[in-house]
Amino acid sequence: MTYCIGLKPDGGLVMIADTRTNAGIDSISAYRKLHLMEHAEDRLMVVASAGNLSITQSMLSMLQEGLPPLEPETPRRSFKTVQTMFQAAQLLGEAVAAARTAIGIHFKNTQINPSASMLLGGRVGDGPLSLYLVYGEGNFIECGTDTPYFQIGERKYGKPMLDRAMHWGVSLAEGVKLGLISFDATMRSNLSVGMPLDLIVIPEDRKLPMIERRIEPDDAYFAQLSHEWSGMLEEALRTLAPPPFMDQASSR
Amino acid sequence: MTYCIGLKPDGGLVMIADTRTNAGIDSISAYRKLHLMEHAEDRLMVVASAGNLSITQSMLSMLQEGLPPLEPETPRRSFKTVQTMFQAAQLLGEAVAAARTAIGIHFKNTQINPSASMLLGGRVGDGPLSLYLVYGEGNFIECGTDTPYFQIGERKYGKPMLDRAMHWGVSLAEGVKLGLISFDATMRSNLSVGMPLDLIVIPEDRKLPMIERRIEPDDAYFAQLSHEWSGMLEEALRTLAPPPFMDQASSR
Repeated sequence: MTYCIGLKPDGGLVMIADTRTNAGIDSISAYRKLHLMEHAEDRLMVVASAGNLSITQSMLSMLQEGLPPLEPETPRRSFKTVQTMFQAAQLLGEAVAAARTAIGIHFKNTQINPSASMLLGGRVGDGPLSLYLVYGEGNFIECGTDTPYFQIGERKYGKPMLDRAMHWGVSLAEGVKLGLISFDATMRSNLSVGMPLDLIVIPEDRKLPMIERRIEPDDAYFAQLSHEWSGMLEEALRTLAPPPFMDQASSR
Repeated sequence: MTYCIGLKPDGGLVMIADTRTNAGIDSISAYRKLHLMEHAEDRLMVVASAGNLSITQSMLSMLQEGLPPLEPETPRRSFKTVQTMFQAAQLLGEAVAAARTAIGIHFKNTQINPSASMLLGGRVGDGPLSLYLVYGEGNFIECGTDTPYFQIGERKYGKPMLDRAMHWGVSLAEGVKLGLISFDATMRSNLSVGMPLDLIVIPEDRKLPMIERRIEPDDAYFAQLSHEWSGMLEEALRTLAPPPFMDQASSR
């Protein structure tokens, strides 16, 4: 399994992915799933991938080599040639569909699941910071204002806190905290999502630097965050109004 | 889908179940899933059920009619005849396995899922308050001190907060609050789990009354709990230490 999220809090974009890959509970390895694909003056593109590792790796290699040109004597199409994030999402969709066709066809009559999904975040030229969710079939949707986040992979455990707290108005630093707490909840409940985590933060303000960080299992800040969060939840539980119908059955 | 939980906080037992049943998103009805099976001086038995409704209903009817006696000229076996909660769990397991055999056989070569699972809580005679999780195959496990709760049905969304906060030392009233918050998280994320909720609280102290309550969609306490919880989570998010690696990218 895998867990990846893309958040669009006020002031930027946050993308986080775990690194655990497993083929059974006794076959666990670490593979990077958050990829800084382009990091140039005019374009920043980050892809997070979940699903069958052979398919997502092939898709990334196809993208790096460039997809065949649409017209003769034009260059191969890659993240370096697209003019907008919409075009980048189209290209990513084309690459994953091609990888699924090339590899997934051999999975017929097997138990192997050829599913894959990706998050694509970044910007091109003067365009806005955008976040897309690209499905294994190649179609995609863009993150909007109503639900300013996407998740792929093991989504359920980490979703309730995003639903409660991830509104427009959350700051970039709060978005990072919330994303890490969502990962903490998921890793506590599903062993197939695991450390280290990869984190990329892209501030909307182009004068501020992009942050790229690997969070190892002994990361002091992550441990502090998890500990403080548990304490606050327990405190909140004590503080909440007691059930009025419990008066006769309990002293507190 | 369904969501049911059984919690064993300090001082008693809490069982909560939703009432939504669906056969497709356009076929939604309400059915009671939390059943007070016995409520007498010497025995209290509560069953919560998840899974295929025809199987769980048949199982409950079998239990009410009594299972065939094991020896001639002895009474039919029911929750009224068992001497311990262990025997009650055995009987419930036998009933669900019988219902699955009788009905599930017709599901072969269909897409219908014959799975079912149950929570059984209560006490018999001078025995302790106990909580069991009974699987559709008839086998079962008892709730212990390490993880003092069980969930059946749509477990993932409501699990992280139980994992963080549901330790021994949580009071009976806190257990009720935590259980309701776990339901709130689940209902927000999965439309197939829905109001009204049924709640039964059995205090360990035999002098205190059992509480049985239906929580309707307009329940004032539930709305207050959900609202306060959201506020506390957002406050906690603001209060948590900011990521140290964000200093250069964000002012707060």
